Amino acid sequence: MATIKDVAKEAGVSVATVSRAMNSSGYVHEDTLKKINRAIETLKYKPNETARTLYKKQSKIIGLLLPDISNPFFTVVARGVEDAALERGFHVVIGNSDQNRDKERQYIDTFRLHNCVGLISSALVWEDVLQYIQSSKMLHVMLDRIGETEYSVEADHYKGGVLQAECLLDNGCKNILVINGNMKFSSFKHRLEGAIHTLEESGAVFETLELNSEGVGHALLDQIRYKAYDGIICYNDLIAIQVMGLLQHNGVNVPGDVQVVGYDDIQISASYFPSLTTVRQPSYLLGRLACEQLIDLLNGKQVRKEIKIDVSLVERKSTRSE
Amino acid sequence: MATIKDVAKEAGVSVATVSRAMNSSGYVHEDTLKKINRAIETLKYKPNETARTLYKKQSKIIGLLLPDISNPFFTVVARGVEDAALERGFHVVIGNSDQNRDKERQYIDTFRLHNCVGLISSALVWEDVLQYIQSSKMLHVMLDRIGETEYSVEADHYKGGVLQAECLLDNGCKNILVINGNMKFSSFKHRLEGAIHTLEESGAVFETLELNSEGVGHALLDQIRYKAYDGIICYNDLIAIQVMGLLQHNGVNVPGDVQVVGYDDIQISASYFPSLTTVRQPSYLLGRLACEQLIDLLNGKQVRKEIKIDVSLVERKSTRSE
Repeated sequence: MATIKDVAKEAGVSVATVSRAMNSSGYVHEDTLKKINRAIETLKYKPNETARTLYKKQSKIIGLLLPDISNPFFTVVARGVEDAALERGFHVVIGNSDQNRDKERQYIDTFRLHNCVGLISSALVWEDVLQYIQSSKMLHVMLDRIGETEYSVEADHYKGGVLQAECLLDNGCKNILVINGNMKFSSFKHRLEGAIHTLEESGAVFETLELNSEGVGHALLDQIRYKAYDGIICYNDLIAIQVMGLLQHNGVNVPGDVQVVGYDDIQISASYFPSLTTVRQPSYLLGRLACEQLIDLLNGKQVRKEIKIDVSLVERKSTRSE
Repeated sequence: MATIKDVAKEAGVSVATVSRAMNSSGYVHEDTLKKINRAIETLKYKPNETARTLYKKQSKIIGLLLPDISNPFFTVVARGVEDAALERGFHVVIGNSDQNRDKERQYIDTFRLHNCVGLISSALVWEDVLQYIQSSKMLHVMLDRIGETEYSVEADHYKGGVLQAECLLDNGCKNILVINGNMKFSSFKHRLEGAIHTLEESGAVFETLELNSEGVGHALLDQIRYKAYDGIICYNDLIAIQVMGLLQHNGVNVPGDVQVVGYDDIQISASYFPSLTTVRQPSYLLGRLACEQLIDLLNGKQVRKEIKIDVSLVERKSTRSE
């Protein structure tokens, strides 16, 4: 690959002149500039970004920290971030924290040490990690999360939880299990609050249970049978699909015996049999807006501190319309 | 955050001395070294990686280029790469090409311009992109792909295709549809070759159809009904699950009317109802081995050009044992 020396030789000027021209850091005669540009084109020269980064103190890389790229919700979010970034001449690199605090810090180090200009994160749950980001001086937008002092973009999770509960109540459920995720995530916390508030107002019988995907096994099945739940609210579609599979494998009919409602509307939710009733988050749009907000911040524009996007219920076959 | 000047002041030495000590680039007295190390610890100083990269000409970042992070197979692969990298002090940044040539080149630029030391890629299908990587001088390991001159790690896809065909034949299928993916991917091509060779030898009636996920709709359903297939081989589990859903939503019983076999063994394949019979690829191991191979190459070790890993059939309920 061509170096700056090759360009200087091709243009018949000194390396220092090429450097001045490229960094607009001093006078270069117009004719010389033309020669240098021709040489750059001829040799297809690409300046070393590391050197330019040092000089200009600003790279064009955005770090995107996700909690779990095996959840299709986040892969669609990532696509939204990438598309918005590429349109504006930025690059995105993705870190996958696996909801692990050490990995989060390692990725923040990776992003920071390599001069990412900004960070979009859906991963953070720990106060010290948040402080670590703040001390890094990277601009930061939280995605699908909110923090007291951070910029954020998220869906209206409280409303989403209300929609989940209303759907089961409207379809005649009297005895409901609410499966909730890790309450450190504001997104899970708020959808749970919305569901519980609605169920309490209705006077329905309900219980909550915190569960991750490893917990979807026979102990859960036994509990569902023993308690004779007729409706289950799940905190995301991945859990809902696992719960439906567990019930179906054991002769429990969905929605005949138990109705199930999910959250996210990932791709497989429509093709699963029975297709899953769920709350749709505009995941691609969430990614785009978070990226646009970050780039606006980088460009010194005024932006709203919190952006909240609407959600909607998608009724399919895992619930029955009465 | 602390700078090298702060460290020098704290240690009572010059910035040049700190720099020499950190880069092991000249004599520094042992006592001075201790003082500097103490200052670094006290101030929690982290050297600017960009500056060090310029000096040492080697970063610790590996670029991982994936074709589609919405396929759970690749997210498990990514986890294998990351775990192996972090254990060895490397960082991984992920690019998602969406099987788009321009995005592939953009990510290769991102990785190269920011001095990634190496690239692991599952994305490449275009000859010019491959040449582009070669010209970048980044060390390169192909993952789940093979190239004529590249290092590679992949599963034994030919055997995988044989296992798919044998499974349906052993379970009594006489009229088989083979759904194949984009033949530019060696992984899809070889599994198709394995399946076809086995079906031809058996004398069974079969047809092939190239299809992506957008093609799983009513036209496919009509064809399946019209041709009265009793077995379907799918090139991955995501397609198999969509095909099963399409059949089930339209009153076709799996495996009673049509048996289905997938490829990959992603997480949802076991919980789907009926659970999916499939060929298991050791996806996490694939990621680990590709990363270890790349780091061995970086360290100047001798490595095998091609690493091939075994696959196995996982029989579940989407096929019936006769």
